[in-house]
Amino acid sequence: MRAGVSVGEARAAVLAEAQPLGLERVSALDALGRVLAEDVASGRTLPPADCSAMDGYAVRAADLASASHAKPVTLPVVYEVAAGGQAPVELRAGEAARIFTGAPIPPGADAVVRQEDTEAEGSSVSVRVAPASGSHVREAGEDVCVGDPAVAAGACIRSGEVGMLASLGRTLVSVHRRPRVAVLSGGDELVEPDETPAPGQIVASNSYALASQAREAGAVARNLGIARDDPADLERHFRAGLDADVLVSSAGVSVGDHDHVRPVLEKLGCRLVFWGVRMKPGYPLAFGTFPEGRGPLVFGLPGNPVSAMVTFELFVRPVLRKLAGHRSWGRPQVEATLVEALSKKPGRTHFVRVQLHRGTDGWEARPTGSQSSGVMRSMVLADGLLEFPADASELPAGSRQRVRVLAPDVLAVEDPS
Amino acid sequence: MRAGVSVGEARAAVLAEAQPLGLERVSALDALGRVLAEDVASGRTLPPADCSAMDGYAVRAADLASASHAKPVTLPVVYEVAAGGQAPVELRAGEAARIFTGAPIPPGADAVVRQEDTEAEGSSVSVRVAPASGSHVREAGEDVCVGDPAVAAGACIRSGEVGMLASLGRTLVSVHRRPRVAVLSGGDELVEPDETPAPGQIVASNSYALASQAREAGAVARNLGIARDDPADLERHFRAGLDADVLVSSAGVSVGDHDHVRPVLEKLGCRLVFWGVRMKPGYPLAFGTFPEGRGPLVFGLPGNPVSAMVTFELFVRPVLRKLAGHRSWGRPQVEATLVEALSKKPGRTHFVRVQLHRGTDGWEARPTGSQSSGVMRSMVLADGLLEFPADASELPAGSRQRVRVLAPDVLAVEDPS
Repeated sequence: MRAGVSVGEARAAVLAEAQPLGLERVSALDALGRVLAEDVASGRTLPPADCSAMDGYAVRAADLASASHAKPVTLPVVYEVAAGGQAPVELRAGEAARIFTGAPIPPGADAVVRQEDTEAEGSSVSVRVAPASGSHVREAGEDVCVGDPAVAAGACIRSGEVGMLASLGRTLVSVHRRPRVAVLSGGDELVEPDETPAPGQIVASNSYALASQAREAGAVARNLGIARDDPADLERHFRAGLDADVLVSSAGVSVGDHDHVRPVLEKLGCRLVFWGVRMKPGYPLAFGTFPEGRGPLVFGLPGNPVSAMVTFELFVRPVLRKLAGHRSWGRPQVEATLVEALSKKPGRTHFVRVQLHRGTDGWEARPTGSQSSGVMRSMVLADGLLEFPADASELPAGSRQRVRVLAPDVLAVEDPS
Repeated sequence: MRAGVSVGEARAAVLAEAQPLGLERVSALDALGRVLAEDVASGRTLPPADCSAMDGYAVRAADLASASHAKPVTLPVVYEVAAGGQAPVELRAGEAARIFTGAPIPPGADAVVRQEDTEAEGSSVSVRVAPASGSHVREAGEDVCVGDPAVAAGACIRSGEVGMLASLGRTLVSVHRRPRVAVLSGGDELVEPDETPAPGQIVASNSYALASQAREAGAVARNLGIARDDPADLERHFRAGLDADVLVSSAGVSVGDHDHVRPVLEKLGCRLVFWGVRMKPGYPLAFGTFPEGRGPLVFGLPGNPVSAMVTFELFVRPVLRKLAGHRSWGRPQVEATLVEALSKKPGRTHFVRVQLHRGTDGWEARPTGSQSSGVMRSMVLADGLLEFPADASELPAGSRQRVRVLAPDVLAVEDPS
């Protein structure tokens, strides 16, 4: 076990232990946000035949070479083809067929004239333009042909993928399983949110914040409840989470006499990979694994609410994204002008909660006030985390800094109307 | 009814008809992503009392003014306070109390010395530092005091808000209702995805893509199925969606003889606000409302798969976000270098499907190949939509253009490890 690792070392260590989870077949129509685990090739040609891109008339372009606004050409309309229909016979020279969007082009026709460029005259049509061959015709296979790649393994399934899979008749697809996360809080001072805390007691809010973070990351979270500060109760709670992919506890991983987490984890067969990350908030973070994957990845997060959330964001979230098969594990980042100077002692990386605003010269980042790791309200106010590097001791006001964005809404741009 | 409106006019018209939906009380622990509809003030002081931020010893700072590494000061440890516990008596001058993170500071004590700065000696402790008064003490109310604003109405509930609400014991909160969206496809050529299309038939994939877009936007979507191209069947399908907040149909709103959507909607009492938007893909878009809100907002989207998805993105998505109470309705946008020249006739705004890549000089946007409105694969490949303004006819290669980002993953930045 290593102690007091850097943020980068910790991130490398946790990601090295996370591999994409196994597969399950789910309805493509409900697979939104999941990661496809198979290459889907098209079993169909789409569109299946040359078809009309417009409502209008199917024609032979050569018949209309001389047509213009000044000198329209009139053709007899010999039949009609609706979407879903078929031309009864070949279209011969000098004939037109009424046609609708999506309908197959009759044999013999090679162009479509838009309805707007024509005038219906009884059973004939007067055409005011000279179409090029192929005008307003969607060619068979324009979208995909049989055997073409349609959606690649590793794609995050969004609405376009759902539509594509539906159009191919692929109603069931293989995706990576969602990570299962079990969350517990430890501490004799904790009560559940629907209980009234006695003096000295507080609500076990970390379990709820961490379970929410897991859900935001696409995982399935369950709450194992509150473990008391004794080895037997901790062991009982940890055992209840051993079938999860990731086990997250908060509190109890520090140096005090009351910290039973580490010995209990070791008793259960968990090997600690590292303990302590040189960061603030969040130094007392532990990470462990079970030999040969015979148990969950275990994160012992600090007990302070902000420390718990920030360490989850930095280390657990990327692991959950990787387990789910995603190829990007990070957050959007923006470069922002720091509006007030920050200072600290060198040695630990600080993650400063900031609000982001659009200034005249791009993004501005303003610390959310108290950076105490107990001030939950600072996480409510924060749009992002500004990384104050370990070796640095001063970040001047006006300097440009990178901020990882926690609130995606802050990046939204409203369109003028 | 107006015809042939601009993109901006259409956006203003649809947003003017959308107002945040009514309230419902839900479990705060399951309210992730919903918009809070009440100002939540704190009913508690957090932390409820001065408490220790570290494991160590509670002391009177004055007793340790001379303590140093060279000359430690030894104090008797008179009792222990665990988190959730209480000091039995006041701490007197010259005494120390063992204390753990989160435990209340004993009356009489004014500082905490970290365990790392001490040495336990039987029932005494030797202290190697001179703490300032207040050291490692979290003050009562440091997070919130009774009556303080905790989470404001209009906030999108993220993990921090869930934790904050839990810590206040607010297990139920008022949020805006989710929009209910009903989706139908119209056309005689359509079959469901689990059916085998006969020649001339295609899958009604638009319903699935549009329902997915609605879900991605946070709405509850249901699929009304396929309406055939006859007024009675269309009316039956539309009636089934009249209890929704938003009714979305695709296909059937064009100029052809087979388009029964508009007369059916008018028969049901829907007033068309506009028909036709000067854009590509997607001109044949209709928007209607029922007088005095006695029915859903109705969007008649074009039938081409890409036109349907792009018009949903531009007009339905912001409406769904506004209905759900969100204060930002847009997408993130980036400025990107266009890698190939684009040209078109002036008159319509084009939305060009592009892939985004990080180049040496910032984002680069590359069109996804065929911009035909039937090529679903272009939506699978697209990271964003580049807006080619209505009046413009050329966008030179190398020019900087704004792109609205459809695939949030593309913005993710991986951390070095």
